[in-house]
Amino acid sequence: MTYCVGMRLDQGLVFLSDSRTNAGVDHINTFRKMHVWEKPGDRLMVLMTAGNLAVSQTTVSLLKERIGEAEAANLNAAPNMFEAARLVGEALRDIRRRDAEALQEFGVEFNAAFIFGGQIGQEAPRLFLVYAAGNFIEATADTPYFQIGESKYGKPIIDRVLKRCSSLQEAAKLALISMDSTIRSNLSVGLPLDLLTYQTDSLRVARHDNIGADDPYFNRIRSQWSECLTHAFDELPNPEWS
Amino acid sequence: MTYCVGMRLDQGLVFLSDSRTNAGVDHINTFRKMHVWEKPGDRLMVLMTAGNLAVSQTTVSLLKERIGEAEAANLNAAPNMFEAARLVGEALRDIRRRDAEALQEFGVEFNAAFIFGGQIGQEAPRLFLVYAAGNFIEATADTPYFQIGESKYGKPIIDRVLKRCSSLQEAAKLALISMDSTIRSNLSVGLPLDLLTYQTDSLRVARHDNIGADDPYFNRIRSQWSECLTHAFDELPNPEWS
Repeated sequence: MTYCVGMRLDQGLVFLSDSRTNAGVDHINTFRKMHVWEKPGDRLMVLMTAGNLAVSQTTVSLLKERIGEAEAANLNAAPNMFEAARLVGEALRDIRRRDAEALQEFGVEFNAAFIFGGQIGQEAPRLFLVYAAGNFIEATADTPYFQIGESKYGKPIIDRVLKRCSSLQEAAKLALISMDSTIRSNLSVGLPLDLLTYQTDSLRVARHDNIGADDPYFNRIRSQWSECLTHAFDELPNPEWS
Repeated sequence: MTYCVGMRLDQGLVFLSDSRTNAGVDHINTFRKMHVWEKPGDRLMVLMTAGNLAVSQTTVSLLKERIGEAEAANLNAAPNMFEAARLVGEALRDIRRRDAEALQEFGVEFNAAFIFGGQIGQEAPRLFLVYAAGNFIEATADTPYFQIGESKYGKPIIDRVLKRCSSLQEAAKLALISMDSTIRSNLSVGLPLDLLTYQTDSLRVARHDNIGADDPYFNRIRSQWSECLTHAFDELPNPEWS
């Protein structure tokens, strides 16, 4: 499986993805699930993928192939993020037309979900969730984040804490805590992580960190959060039973 | 859906279940998912159910019908908890033989999972997870709890905090926090709750509380836990970025 979370805040965007893929417990591998298209001063787009690895890799390859091709299908020529999200959905549909029937013959579901976000020119940053059918929804003020993959373990803490006005640092911290809860409870999600932050109107990557098992900040967050939770639990009163 | 959790501790057993069932968003109802067989001084057995409501209700009805019948199928005559768990599995298999084919004709999966635990006579308390196929596994010192239904939201906190040596009060508090995280993130899990605690060797129910929206302890736990988490989050350092 996979766990990716994308957040759209007033200050910008935060993307976090893990890198574990598995097809059964004896086919566990490390593949990056975050893909970045950057034209500094013009646009920054980030795509995170979950689902069938062949489907998502092929879609990303097709999108890369189309950079520099005819304007109509070229992410770097899309006039805005809505049109760019449409191109991502179209690429996924093209792969589906090509592969779905053959997959079905092997009983394999055509299974994919993408988080796609960024900023083009003077339009505000936008964040989309693209479904396997190539259609998509957009994050709003009410729901400023999307998750794909193993999303349930890490959802409660985001629901409790995330605000549109959170800083990029706070949101990155929150995403890492959410990832920690997921990694602890689910073997199919694992290190290293890709953490990318984007500052509104900068039109370039603010930071792109690769977080491995020896990352001091992530390790500090992990151990301190565990301590905080245990402490918070101890602080709560037990039920008063006679 | 459903969320139920059962814990086996040195001091005894804790069971917590919600009461929401849904078949689509316009068929939401309240049904208890906790069933108790008690013969004070002799045995106490608790069954919590998830999955298809018709399947689990019918299985419970069959088990109740068999109380007082031939010894071989009577929960109240089972010599130990292992044999009692076998009878629960057998009842589920009987329902499957009766209903599975008809369900399949309507494209409905035969879907059920039970948590079953208790104590019979001088044997130590035991806790089982019964699958739809009627087979089961037992909680051990390494894995002292089981969940059924919407288990992922409320799993991380249990994984972090639960110990075999936790008191019944602490475990009840933990189960309620786990339930709170689930209810906040998933509409298909809802109040009222059934919370039952059992003290080792008492051979009777210690407490069976019905927890509704106006329960002062649960409401205190909910708001205070939220505050604690937000506070703990604020206490953690942000990443130090230049």
